[in-house]
Amino acid sequence: MPLKHYLLTPGPTPVPERIALAMAQPIPHHRAPAFEALFAEVREGLKWLYGTKEDVLTFASSGTGAMEGAIVNFQRAGDEILTVNGGKFGERWGKIGKAYGLKVHELKVEWGKAVEPAAIEQALKEHPGIRGVYLQASESSTGVAHPVREVAALTRGSQAICVVDAVSALGAMPLPMDEWGIDVLITGSQKALMLPPGLAFAAASEKAWKLSAEATLPRFYFDWRREREMQRKNQTAWTPAISLVVGLAEVIRWLREEGLDRVYARHERLAKASRAAMEAIGCRLYAERPVVSLTTVWSPEGVDSDKLVKTLKTKYGVTLVGGQDAAKGKIFRIAHLGYFDDLDIVIAVAAIERALADHGYRAQPLGTGVGAAMRVMQELAEKPAEKAA
Amino acid sequence: MPLKHYLLTPGPTPVPERIALAMAQPIPHHRAPAFEALFAEVREGLKWLYGTKEDVLTFASSGTGAMEGAIVNFQRAGDEILTVNGGKFGERWGKIGKAYGLKVHELKVEWGKAVEPAAIEQALKEHPGIRGVYLQASESSTGVAHPVREVAALTRGSQAICVVDAVSALGAMPLPMDEWGIDVLITGSQKALMLPPGLAFAAASEKAWKLSAEATLPRFYFDWRREREMQRKNQTAWTPAISLVVGLAEVIRWLREEGLDRVYARHERLAKASRAAMEAIGCRLYAERPVVSLTTVWSPEGVDSDKLVKTLKTKYGVTLVGGQDAAKGKIFRIAHLGYFDDLDIVIAVAAIERALADHGYRAQPLGTGVGAAMRVMQELAEKPAEKAA
Repeated sequence: MPLKHYLLTPGPTPVPERIALAMAQPIPHHRAPAFEALFAEVREGLKWLYGTKEDVLTFASSGTGAMEGAIVNFQRAGDEILTVNGGKFGERWGKIGKAYGLKVHELKVEWGKAVEPAAIEQALKEHPGIRGVYLQASESSTGVAHPVREVAALTRGSQAICVVDAVSALGAMPLPMDEWGIDVLITGSQKALMLPPGLAFAAASEKAWKLSAEATLPRFYFDWRREREMQRKNQTAWTPAISLVVGLAEVIRWLREEGLDRVYARHERLAKASRAAMEAIGCRLYAERPVVSLTTVWSPEGVDSDKLVKTLKTKYGVTLVGGQDAAKGKIFRIAHLGYFDDLDIVIAVAAIERALADHGYRAQPLGTGVGAAMRVMQELAEKPAEKAA
Repeated sequence: MPLKHYLLTPGPTPVPERIALAMAQPIPHHRAPAFEALFAEVREGLKWLYGTKEDVLTFASSGTGAMEGAIVNFQRAGDEILTVNGGKFGERWGKIGKAYGLKVHELKVEWGKAVEPAAIEQALKEHPGIRGVYLQASESSTGVAHPVREVAALTRGSQAICVVDAVSALGAMPLPMDEWGIDVLITGSQKALMLPPGLAFAAASEKAWKLSAEATLPRFYFDWRREREMQRKNQTAWTPAISLVVGLAEVIRWLREEGLDRVYARHERLAKASRAAMEAIGCRLYAERPVVSLTTVWSPEGVDSDKLVKTLKTKYGVTLVGGQDAAKGKIFRIAHLGYFDDLDIVIAVAAIERALADHGYRAQPLGTGVGAAMRVMQELAEKPAEKAA
């Protein structure tokens, strides 16, 4: 067994000690003024993070609960929606829609590729009844970033709302909701927000809230109108996951201290370094339009990525994830999402190089990938002057 | 501001340091073997706690999410259900049922009273189409224990399932699901299980699972069949609230060490001591059939309980809750649910006696209530021999 363990998965992501200790404090009561003040701080912070003037609602659930909410709060039985299915999470939009009796038009996108805005435009023309376009900002199963800004622009003139699952994107890259015209934006706690899983978040535009007034699908726990009413009073409709909200307040303070521009630049730097490392050792990248949250990589010919992942875990203490469904056994995924910095990528790349060698693959001398990553980091390192700014 | 703070509310309840520190450990990945082993341990522990051979499912949600699940997984649109409404939580069953288009027969019970099994029997005769009886083991808004054992026995011969919300009861008192014939039993993490809020639990009998095969209400996040399938593989359908599950494993170890009989006896002792204390200072008890989880008390004539609660908080650092809805301003509630022992009740009673005096009420010399509580505790104290057994 390795002495040390490293979590490099796209959710859950490592929880910083500062946050873990904040959550280990005695628990406050959620109907007490102290909690209300904390929740007010969290609500302001989430608006800042989302780039929105709308309320950002907090739920005790995983991200899937917010995905369900993004359907049941805005559609009516039999409504038509368009879902972008280019991976596990895109597929889920369709499954939820069907569970609630919607007419789902599924735009299938080859795994590893991003949706073409033109295909969305075409679908909206073909099916003018579509009331919502559902897609991912970051499809974690493939590491692809869909062009949500362009898609949001396309829906602006239509009756359809643009609904974006940013569970593994928000906080890692800019997604200014109001500026880009995203109508519904959801995320979760266990990714760039550096918390354990258990919280989901959602905001909706005026256009979306108007649709919601006509929505007829049954809902109770995920009734966003009721939540909005309560959360505007710094309360929640149902008992909140208090310790996670306490942690979130600390996360927001952290992000304000670091500054969002620097947080995004850090994610960008780690993503570029990881990609450079993988290419330097002769591994092909899987995602054509890669997201900054994770780097997905084809396992070399003859190396089963599930076995590689197992070696990484058992021999080097590094937890990565392999591929799912269409990509099972074929790819591995390096996360750099949330509490990650340069040396985490050095760890990941070094372990991957060694594990690949253990599995008989060594196209370049050991250290080649690490060196490539380091050069990118050096080049993109924060300048002291920028840091002070 | 008081130097120290004491949380004596019926949820959230205090989290023991041992549990908080377990949850502050680095977070494991939920698809890793180590988490699966931990989850297997948790699943076994929950079965033991529920007294059932059925699967006990874990959800990332508040207890209300499990209440919703207990409706949508077993009923069809238009189905008739019977709900016992003798408080805030009983009322919620009806609200959820209506949100999903059920025909809800609401059995109204005066606040502070328990439902009469005869009334249930009568309703089942009058409405033979009823497919579910929904009630609380502990109605936290009134401190009443409904006679769930008797109600479960009444439904046994009918098509109706007996669905019990034991959010503020399970782990505080015996509720052996299989022995009593409870069909659906739900609870939450933030009560007797001594965890922060964020997890809900549910188990269903064979009879309930059969109904579930016919259930047609739409559901996705709270789809219990899918969860059962996944959790049997020590996985969850959606990302679990990992840190809370880690804490739960530690809680279950704790409860096994203390022993459930002793846990129940401790709750019983604290409940009796609290009631004796309140009666000794001339305060009337609110619940006619009080639950062991909390003691609800009429505020003395002329003392607004909301103001009393505020004084307790600001002057003595003791967080209690007052009354809701029909009981607002009239009652206060002392919780002794979860991580509570004798001296916590001494604290609560001493603070209440002083706060009452601050508000002009002092029927007995200060310390009368505390003394009464202490005598009950002494009488019901564990005998060393019992402790060793």
